[in-house]
Amino acid sequence: MDLAVLTRYRVQITDALAASLEGEAALRPILAYHVGLADERGRPANAVGKLLRPSLVLFVAQQLGASLERALPAAVGLELIHNFSLIHDDIQDGDRTRRGRPTVWAAWGVNEAINAGDLMQALAVHEALQSGPVAASLLLNATAAMIEGQSMDLGFETRTVALDQYLRMIDGKTGALIVAAFQLGGAVADADDATQAVLRRLGRAVGRAFQIQDDLLGIWGDALVVGKPNASDIRRRKKSYPTVLAFERANGDDRATLQQIYGQAALTDDDVDWVINLMTRLGIQSDGRITVQEHLDDAAQALDELPFSTDGRRDLENLMDYLARRDK
Amino acid sequence: MDLAVLTRYRVQITDALAASLEGEAALRPILAYHVGLADERGRPANAVGKLLRPSLVLFVAQQLGASLERALPAAVGLELIHNFSLIHDDIQDGDRTRRGRPTVWAAWGVNEAINAGDLMQALAVHEALQSGPVAASLLLNATAAMIEGQSMDLGFETRTVALDQYLRMIDGKTGALIVAAFQLGGAVADADDATQAVLRRLGRAVGRAFQIQDDLLGIWGDALVVGKPNASDIRRRKKSYPTVLAFERANGDDRATLQQIYGQAALTDDDVDWVINLMTRLGIQSDGRITVQEHLDDAAQALDELPFSTDGRRDLENLMDYLARRDK
Repeated sequence: MDLAVLTRYRVQITDALAASLEGEAALRPILAYHVGLADERGRPANAVGKLLRPSLVLFVAQQLGASLERALPAAVGLELIHNFSLIHDDIQDGDRTRRGRPTVWAAWGVNEAINAGDLMQALAVHEALQSGPVAASLLLNATAAMIEGQSMDLGFETRTVALDQYLRMIDGKTGALIVAAFQLGGAVADADDATQAVLRRLGRAVGRAFQIQDDLLGIWGDALVVGKPNASDIRRRKKSYPTVLAFERANGDDRATLQQIYGQAALTDDDVDWVINLMTRLGIQSDGRITVQEHLDDAAQALDELPFSTDGRRDLENLMDYLARRDK
Repeated sequence: MDLAVLTRYRVQITDALAASLEGEAALRPILAYHVGLADERGRPANAVGKLLRPSLVLFVAQQLGASLERALPAAVGLELIHNFSLIHDDIQDGDRTRRGRPTVWAAWGVNEAINAGDLMQALAVHEALQSGPVAASLLLNATAAMIEGQSMDLGFETRTVALDQYLRMIDGKTGALIVAAFQLGGAVADADDATQAVLRRLGRAVGRAFQIQDDLLGIWGDALVVGKPNASDIRRRKKSYPTVLAFERANGDDRATLQQIYGQAALTDDDVDWVINLMTRLGIQSDGRITVQEHLDDAAQALDELPFSTDGRRDLENLMDYLARRDK
């Protein structure tokens, strides 16, 4: 499948990303390392991710008639906000690797990683401000919502979580920046309030489909493809979508066993197998797939209300399809 | 002495600070706690600091003819940036108390403290944006310079530091936000480039006087007044102004002993006494006081070039005098 949305702007975004991080301070090469532009010694590297969020900004902006020039700073700002959050998430989760490379804290220590994330947040907003104060304000609101979602997620580690709380959490932690991608595209095109409302609905639906698919992969994803051990989210006792549903649906003995397993200090392979088996009995994987599809249908409906070109509509549908069916 | 600059705007700043932190998320009360508006359980508290930076913004703005209404968001934004940096500094330094209260990480854990600082940075810039994009841009540049200074300071822990490197570090870590206070006041008054250049010189001089005085207090300050153990900066082997000067000036046996002491895992009371005695022999305390005064003279010269009222000039001179002679 041709993912035009992800390929069309890649060179421009990568160049602007590099320019936004330039500077003399010792911290700058750490930022370039984190986004995949450099290796640990500052030599050029080719490890930039798929640039989903900034690509969406530019795509929406172009569909709504804005120039790429005006949209590019907002797009880069959004990608930097996403990356600042990853630097700090990796500290919080104790993750030593990300996409096969040492995380910033693992390579430079926690203190410098805190600084690196802080600096990246400031550079992100400074960049977005070049697309205008409305774009900067949108990005800041999304950043606040994302951080509040991250805080909710940390709180989930020590208690049972209801489905609506889980959805509120992902609407912040993952959803806010996806929604922001669509809204920033609208903002730089001076979209009216009605259009922004549709873009918000579209972003929310795509964000939920994206995160729930991610959560399904965290349990049923092929270890070799996803790059994490099989069922890693169960081993980490992460309160992801399947786990939240399992706690909602399990009754009697199942519920007691589930609570007992999630209360243990460490899980055996048998524990993990039992949880996966329970989830299968409760129909969680198939229902999860249906839920992802429902959100994509919502997204498609919102898309119908937007004045995109026929080609643009097809490009975005291809991307949504890819996000929902991806295996990593 | 009447410190009009610090008293005149206190109520307005405090109210605007409280309003800027309002919100439903669980993180919000942590932010209100940190700035001293609430206690650990979210009940109102009266522990807001002296609000030096936002008071300077409003003072300069008013002297240059801007309305307080236009200046207030920038002032609050600057205070929030200062406070976000303190939340993260306390994690990095492992400090469990600040001004007699538990630090955020000590009360809520490191992960939530990272989130709290991140959120406060975003809210800060969002607030400043209400004073216009120029103010937001100034604040973001100052934030980046501050973080780069903090990163330099962390790097100093493990090596010898020359005086010019030390000055570059404090120009970032402390100076950037003091300079920003003056420049934000200028920005909301639409000051021209020449006036902004004078405000920058003034801010830089005040910032250096302020930080060097702080460093002198970190060694010779009265423990009861400063609220830290006597000579605490020596015990922590902090590369502060007196220490940097001591390494620059000590020769022969003195230098060898100094290096040996700063290389130890822990310092005895005798070690601390020896270092203080060395600093006295090298004339560092008295030279430090002279240096503070020199920076204040520079500040006074810059002040002469600004179109401040006679009363305004006197108010700022009083404040600078207080900052240079304070004992905590």
